Amino acid sequence: MSLLENKTVVYKKVPVGLPTEENLEIVTSKVSSSAPDGGLLIQVLYVSLDPFLRGRMRDPSIRSYRPAYSTGEILSNFGIGRVIYSSAPEFAKGDIVKSNITQFTMYQAVPKECRKFFNKVENPNGFPLTYFLGVLGMPGLTAYYSFYKIGEPKKGETILISAASGAVGQLVGQLAKHEGLRVIGSVGSDEKVKYLKDELEFDEAWNYKEISPVVAIAKHIPEGIDIYFDNVGGELLDAALAGMSNYGRIIACGQISQYNISNPEDRYGIKNTMMIVAKRLKFQGFIILDIYDGEAGTVAEFEETVSKLLKDGGFIYKEDVIDGIENTLDGFVAMLTGKNFGKVSVKVSA
Amino acid sequence: MSLLENKTVVYKKVPVGLPTEENLEIVTSKVSSSAPDGGLLIQVLYVSLDPFLRGRMRDPSIRSYRPAYSTGEILSNFGIGRVIYSSAPEFAKGDIVKSNITQFTMYQAVPKECRKFFNKVENPNGFPLTYFLGVLGMPGLTAYYSFYKIGEPKKGETILISAASGAVGQLVGQLAKHEGLRVIGSVGSDEKVKYLKDELEFDEAWNYKEISPVVAIAKHIPEGIDIYFDNVGGELLDAALAGMSNYGRIIACGQISQYNISNPEDRYGIKNTMMIVAKRLKFQGFIILDIYDGEAGTVAEFEETVSKLLKDGGFIYKEDVIDGIENTLDGFVAMLTGKNFGKVSVKVSA
Repeated sequence: MSLLENKTVVYKKVPVGLPTEENLEIVTSKVSSSAPDGGLLIQVLYVSLDPFLRGRMRDPSIRSYRPAYSTGEILSNFGIGRVIYSSAPEFAKGDIVKSNITQFTMYQAVPKECRKFFNKVENPNGFPLTYFLGVLGMPGLTAYYSFYKIGEPKKGETILISAASGAVGQLVGQLAKHEGLRVIGSVGSDEKVKYLKDELEFDEAWNYKEISPVVAIAKHIPEGIDIYFDNVGGELLDAALAGMSNYGRIIACGQISQYNISNPEDRYGIKNTMMIVAKRLKFQGFIILDIYDGEAGTVAEFEETVSKLLKDGGFIYKEDVIDGIENTLDGFVAMLTGKNFGKVSVKVSA
Repeated sequence: MSLLENKTVVYKKVPVGLPTEENLEIVTSKVSSSAPDGGLLIQVLYVSLDPFLRGRMRDPSIRSYRPAYSTGEILSNFGIGRVIYSSAPEFAKGDIVKSNITQFTMYQAVPKECRKFFNKVENPNGFPLTYFLGVLGMPGLTAYYSFYKIGEPKKGETILISAASGAVGQLVGQLAKHEGLRVIGSVGSDEKVKYLKDELEFDEAWNYKEISPVVAIAKHIPEGIDIYFDNVGGELLDAALAGMSNYGRIIACGQISQYNISNPEDRYGIKNTMMIVAKRLKFQGFIILDIYDGEAGTVAEFEETVSKLLKDGGFIYKEDVIDGIENTLDGFVAMLTGKNFGKVSVKVSA
């Protein structure tokens, strides 16, 4: 047994608005190179950065679908690691594992009772390991489940996707093309517009910084929106409500435009909810953890289907890998403000 | 053949805000006491006043689920009449008929090609004829269909109903009690609160003019709302979103608080749509005409079930019958501003 130099991201206090170094601090420490009886030592390779982490950085008295982080705790999320020490029979040194309690740290000591949260990664197709945090992980299941289950897509319909080049949006768009829909995306740069049209073969796309959503919808979707996949909330949600077709479906996936508004009074007020009545809309939310917990068959179907589409169906997936644990905060803020391009994760080791 | 003195409500121009005599005018005329070949002459008995009529009084260039009234046309809606002249084989003088193109007039001449919109009223239980405009008519089907189909009620759940003593709300509340739910209502007077609690056996009710919706929900529904039946939109909808339980359903029936706001910018802005994501809510609209058009089985089931509940199940139904066609405008404005008490219709003749 020896001691390893470790770096860790510690959650220090609840952010007001965007998080800063006051909220997420890099702490240096030493960690034992072995593990207690029945435990593991994991060398963390990649940890996922997802918008919902912002929601966990809240006053813990506010209940929500995922527990709030406690101040002083190590930031954690979905991640990929390599077993470097095992005293557990089901794991061997060198195994690649995934877990939803991976810490933002170089070396994670896993006690016996937490082994069950780690699973070996099966990767017969040799995909990049980050795919298991993105297109084949939680964001991918989010896209797959909600597009089919809430979206109820029909060939020939039109779908609008916000944050369309993001972790979830790019898979939704490719699934929608695959199902014969007309696919439109809203994104935050001309480079992303080009990616959607040239690489993902979207029918139309716009840069929301250069055109208002009302004008963009009138111009690009005169036939009306059958499915709106909402990752952003706010002004685009309001415009989409007005631009929906009768019997349209709105998939309530997230509202990233509203996450860093600290005073609820300052949130964007949606004026067009009457459209839900007049156009017989369905506006429905979901939490993907419910599917992981309750629908193992759906998860297996998703993994099999999307793996095949990536291998043989021409599906692609753009990733934005932040190099080095010390850049976690910058990468997180970039994602929350739309400066990322593709699914964001932090590369801790390789 | 002779000539009958007639009074008619004519729609003159699109209202800005609440309608006035400039918008709905009483016109006196004479009408033939017979009818053209194959036609009918109907003595109108009752015509229904429903909030959605306000939506039909709009700029006809704005498309919506029901056609806009044309200026100069006679106001029309669901109504009950008596055949006083028939040259059609399927109707005899004295028949009681219902129609969704009943005019706000004393005598309605029905040409041959419009006979199909009139149906004989079967009333073996001897209900008041106005019931066929309310609890057994369009508002009743609205309540019945959406409560079961969108609400998916389960015994032991809690439902909040706005405009709970209105045409739709009072049937929703009684159906919900019948199904074993905890039933809470929001209404606009202490008299209505008393009616809900004493007559309809609601578990709780409040007067929204005396308590804010956020406070009322915190006080009366600490367990969370499983179903919110929304007739009003605006501030109560926003508070209900915040007060929903996980997996809650919002039945989007109407938004009467917003109907007379002429500038869209002045509408209430809903700030809590993120709850749809976080609490996995379903917020769904419907148009009851779709059910009349496409689900004859549902309509028959509704009529049979609710007739039985009225006859043997202790169900009651409060009505607010405006006496005289010349009071149509006042009755309509009273309904739009919540001054009615129960289902509103205009008694033209008896």
